[in-house]
Parts: sequence; C-alpha cells; structure tokens
Amino acid sequence: MAKFDSQDHQHLRYNPLRDDWVLVCPHRMKRPWAGHVEKPEEETIPRHDRKNPLCPGNTRPNGMVNPDYDSTFLFTNDFPALLEEGPAPDESDDPLFRCAEAKGTCKVMCFHPWSDITLPIMSLTEIRVVIDKWAEINSDIGKQFSWVQIFENRGAIMGCSNPHPHCQVWASSFLPNEPTVKHRTQREYMEKHQSNMLLDYVHRELERKERVVLENADWVWLVPYWAVWPYETLLIPKTHVLRIEDLTDIQRQSLAEITKQLLTKYDNLFEVSFPYSMGWAGAPTGKYLSEDCSFWQLHAVYYPPLLRSASVKKFMVGYEMMATVQRDLTAEQAAQKLKDLPDVHYKQRAH
Amino acid sequence: MAKFDSQDHQHLRYNPLRDDWVLVCPHRMKRPWAGHVEKPEEETIPRHDRKNPLCPGNTRPNGMVNPDYDSTFLFTNDFPALLEEGPAPDESDDPLFRCAEAKGTCKVMCFHPWSDITLPIMSLTEIRVVIDKWAEINSDIGKQFSWVQIFENRGAIMGCSNPHPHCQVWASSFLPNEPTVKHRTQREYMEKHQSNMLLDYVHRELERKERVVLENADWVWLVPYWAVWPYETLLIPKTHVLRIEDLTDIQRQSLAEITKQLLTKYDNLFEVSFPYSMGWAGAPTGKYLSEDCSFWQLHAVYYPPLLRSASVKKFMVGYEMMATVQRDLTAEQAAQKLKDLPDVHYKQRAH
Ligand SMILES: O=P(O)(O)O[C@H]1O[C@H](CO)[C@@H](O)[C@H](O)[C@H]1O
Ligand SMILES: O=P(O)(O)O[C@H]1O[C@H](CO)[C@@H](O)[C@H](O)[C@H]1O
Repeated sequence: MAKFDSQDHQHLRYNPLRDDWVLVCPHRMKRPWAGHVEKPEEETIPRHDRKNPLCPGNTRPNGMVNPDYDSTFLFTNDFPALLEEGPAPDESDDPLFRCAEAKGTCKVMCFHPWSDITLPIMSLTEIRVVIDKWAEINSDIGKQFSWVQIFENRGAIMGCSNPHPHCQVWASSFLPNEPTVKHRTQREYMEKHQSNMLLDYVHRELERKERVVLENADWVWLVPYWAVWPYETLLIPKTHVLRIEDLTDIQRQSLAEITKQLLTKYDNLFEVSFPYSMGWAGAPTGKYLSEDCSFWQLHAVYYPPLLRSASVKKFMVGYEMMATVQRDLTAEQAAQKLKDLPDVHYKQRAH
Repeated sequence: MAKFDSQDHQHLRYNPLRDDWVLVCPHRMKRPWAGHVEKPEEETIPRHDRKNPLCPGNTRPNGMVNPDYDSTFLFTNDFPALLEEGPAPDESDDPLFRCAEAKGTCKVMCFHPWSDITLPIMSLTEIRVVIDKWAEINSDIGKQFSWVQIFENRGAIMGCSNPHPHCQVWASSFLPNEPTVKHRTQREYMEKHQSNMLLDYVHRELERKERVVLENADWVWLVPYWAVWPYETLLIPKTHVLRIEDLTDIQRQSLAEITKQLLTKYDNLFEVSFPYSMGWAGAPTGKYLSEDCSFWQLHAVYYPPLLRSASVKKFMVGYEMMATVQRDLTAEQAAQKLKDLPDVHYKQRAH
C-alpha cells in the first residue's frame, strides 16, 4: 500500500482549541458539482443612500438620527438580541430543563462614512482607527460584561443585512459556548505543559512555514492545521497578548497593515468582495479581569464560506451537523493558494 | 420589574445532549429585515431525466449503469468522502498537530424511482420500505464501522446537489464529534440518575405537552426545549430503543405514519417543499456492539434553515460561530405554529 500523504489521503485532524476533530478528504477534490449556485453580488452600492440607516445623517427605524460622522460610528443596536436589563428566570436544577439568566448589550460600529468602501480598500490610517475603536470598546464594555464578542458578518451570503461597512459587538453577562471551551482547553494546556497553547502553536507554525500565509514583525496570518472552512484562517500576535486593548501602538499599526494585506488576498482569491464571518477572542472580561487568564492568547478567526468560486460555497449540512465537520481541500493547499495571490487589490490594479 | 416570562424575556437554555447552551431572545421577533432573500425553487422537476445520475436505468459519471429500480436503490457514492481502504497516518502524540486514521464508506439511497416525488407525498407503504432499508443498512454496515450516519440534505439551500429524493449514509471507523458528545452525556446522566436521559425527557415532555407537535402510540415529534434552528425538531420512540434495526414491525409502521404527518406539516408551514438536514442517531456500532450502550436512546433530528418564509432563512454566522447559537422565536412558539398547521399536504388539498 502507498505511504500516507496528508495531501492525498483521508485523515482526522485534532483542534486543540475546540477539543474536537475535522475530517480531511483531499482525494475528494475532483468530484463534479451540480448544486446550489449563489450569484455574486454585482450591484453597485451608492456611496450615500438616504434610506440606509447606517449612513451619516440618516434617521434610523427607531427615529434616532445618526450624526454626520466622518470616521467610525458606534451605537447601540436598535433591535438588540441582548438587553442590559430584564427579569431573570428562576435558577433551576432540573437537568433536562435548565435555564439561566442572560444580560448584555449589542452595538453596531460603522467603519467608514461611505457605503461603497470595504476594509481592504480603506487606508492604513482609517483601518487603524477601527482597531483603536475595537480596543476601546473591549476595554469599556468589558468592565461590565464577561464576554465582549466583536464580529463582522461580511456579505449577504453570511446573513449581512446591510452593505455599509460595519461590525457588531455583542457583550454578555455569561461566557458563551465557544469561549467556554477555549477557556478550558487553554487552561488545561498551560497546566500540563507550563506554556501558552497558542503561543507554542504559532512558534511551531513559524518553523514549519507550510501554513503561514503572511507575517510581519508582530503578527502571523495562517491557515490553522485544524481549519474547517475551505479558506479559514487565524490571525495572531507573535508575542503574548491577553486582550485587544493590550496591543501596543506598534502592534496596532502592524495589525492595520496585515489586515489590509490579508483582506486584499481574500478579495483577490475569486475577484469578488470576499464574504466571511470574523471575530476576536481574547481573555474574558468582567469578573475574569481579576483572575489569572495568562493561558489565553488574543486571536482573530476568519470563517469564509466560499469553496471553488465566487458562486460555489461549502455547505455545513447533514454529515457536518450530525457527525463531524468535513473538508476536501487541505489546510496546506489553501495556504499555498492564498500565498500565491497578488498583493494588490484586483479593483486597484492597473490593467 | 415585570415577572420573568420565557416567551417574552431573554434567557439561556441548556442542551443536555450536547452539553452547551442556546441564547433565546423572544423580544427580538419584531426586528425588520433587509438582507439576503433565497428564491424558493419553483422549477418543475421532470419525473425521469435522462441526465440525472440518480434515475433508474441512467449511467452515472463513473460509467456504472443504475438498475431499472422500482422502489429504493442503494449504491456506494461515486465520490465518497470516506474510503474503506487507504494508508493510515502515523499516530502522533504532538498535542498541537494531532492526526488520526479515518476509514469508512459513503452510500446514497434513492427513496423512489421518480424525481418529482418527496417523502410526504409518498405512500405509507413506500415510506415503510425506506425505513426497513435504513434499518438494514445500519445493521449491515454497523458490523464493520463504529458509526453509521444516515442523513438527508433536502433542498438546494441545504447543499443538496440533486433534486431526486434520496438520503446518504456515511459510515466511519471513528466515533464522530457529535455522537462522541452524546455518548458521554447520556452515559453520565445514566450514572447519575440511574435512568435513560432521552426517555426521561420524552416522558416529561408528554406531561408538559407545550412542545409536543405530534404523537402516536410509539412515537413523539416535538420541538426540543433546547432547539437551535427556528423549527428544529426531535423524533423519538416512547419506549427504549437502541438502534434503528431494533424497531419492531409495529414501530416501523407507526414511524412511517408520523414521518408522513410531520413532513406534511413542515411543507405546509410556508407552502414550499421544506428544506432541512435530518439524521438518525442511536447507539454506536462496530466494536460498541459488544459494549453496554443502554444509556442511548434512538432519535432523529430535523434542522430546517427557514425562519420567516420560504425565502428568509436563519443565518448561523458571526455571533453563532464565535460565541453561542441564538434564536428569536421560542421552542414553544415554534411548536404551536406547527401544531396549528393543516394535516393535509398543500399540494394535495382540494381548492
Ligand atoms: O454529497 P453532497 O450531497 O453533494 O454534498 C452535501 O452533503 C455533504 C454531507 O453533508 C456536505 O459535505 C456537502 O458540503 C454538501 O454539499
Ligand atoms: O444583526 P444582523 O446582521 O441583522 O444579523 C446577522 O448576524 C446575527 C449575529 O451573528 C445573526 O444572529 C443573524 O442570524 C444574522 O442574520
């Protein structure tokens, strides 16, 4: 029998952060496709639309008027999933009908006054303002809440209901599922190995190189060994950073640079404004601020749904929902494809 | 402050099978929507299409010719994610780059020779044949593999690449992520309470009634307390059953009946052939056949993506991916909506 080759043969890979597995099936790259095709959004977006509730100066559905902002703009979501106040359920010990209190707040942050611009097209100075704002929000809201989830849903295919460049912040009194697992796995790794899991990981990746797409003095952008989505990536500082507000001036500047570079690569992959959900994860806040969380390492994840083209996405359905997440393209193949892409945005290239 | 009302106020609900939480935000039901709209598939599907590789008598892409089948038809997937043989990776103890062997097989089962029919339109006799086949497959393939995942992706929105009525079976040498968690939670419940978790649960639901949509002598169809998808449901026998092949003749007949009824309700909800991923879960097989798995209870889950209409789906994106799954409509409201629907299929009603 042939020797095992991870680029050709089926295998499972372990995700130490989530403590679960992904099934990798590289031999399946050649299957034909006759299913769902999502049309790439080709619509031209007006720079300022009087009816868009995210534009400067416009009135939102709840009657509030946006300021004439010329940079970022942060406000509380008009239809928040989480409210700061509300009656709490009685705690119940019933193992089959357990219910718990949920409090929180939901914010929206516009990145820019224009609707027809995206992060990779924005200047480094403009991206830097967004980063400073993320840090400020995490630090401010984190005083009150245990978890501050900063995330961006980009593109209609990712449920984004407004084309204006923006992200969301949902903060909660409770530690949500994903960070609960990451809290446990990073703590257990530290207890067992006396070192930080993700820092160990990033240093090993920098030696191995095969999954690193971009790096600068402070940051690494890579396709994690355990990636689930075809072009899933991890953005991570090279040194120990607990929370986004702990980033130094220099680290913030180099974050602006690598963010512009990585989003340019993403857009160049299928020459489309690349859809994804992205989010930040660092040590929890609120009551955790006074606890030792040194086993945490700040990181951002990008989960893009596209698989083969601007119109063919990966569906996480049947087998993935009932059994185990599955991918065909390997993490190394995805990293190589991203590495090979030009560094100039396709919309800004001279033809 | 008002008294807590689970139909009005935000809260968390615990899922004892998955050992995690869902955030329920009923107050958010009123928010406006301006995002992605999936067009319902209105295309008429030909009963027999010479180019469809699932139709009787046709030649598949790999040159194999389908028999002229007149009932169900089972064959090995032409592009299987899992192969029965292949070189295995070296086992590695490296906690950051763990890799494991994966072997398996992938089957496709056509439900019916016609492409323009779906399960709820099929006769009870025809549905019963499908059920018997599921039982036979689980028992046959289960001799060799630890997990036999029977699942159906229905509708293009769920990544289904062929409109011909069919399901898939992916069997594996390993216990996948989801059943691994269910194995642990059901075992721990049994150790702690000396009874079967899901049987306790179904009996409590039958007393409470508020989430039960349909029942007959042997089966209950309900929206679980911890449902994540807007119209997610659980189909479960009233008595202890380990695996689908253990169902008696009578239980199989009543399963055919409730399956036809529940899929009719689903289709009637938005008067569209309702998309979903469904799958069976029972005690694991292979080497587990000789172990005590009495803490397991057979069940099927339905995960439908639609939220408000045939064209507006729930997106499991940003917050859901990074933090915790979230829903607006409560499980009780969903159950009530399903209960109120007619029992005759909208395509078969006299107008
Ligand atoms: O095998 P199919 O129907 O082409 O593929 C579909 O189901 C599979 C199993 O859930 C998924 O991995 C694919 O992403 C999906 O498109
Ligand atoms: O708030 P939005 O952008 O309208 O909503 C989007 O993001 C939310 C948070 O990930 C999801 O719960 C919604 O399903 C999605 O459509």
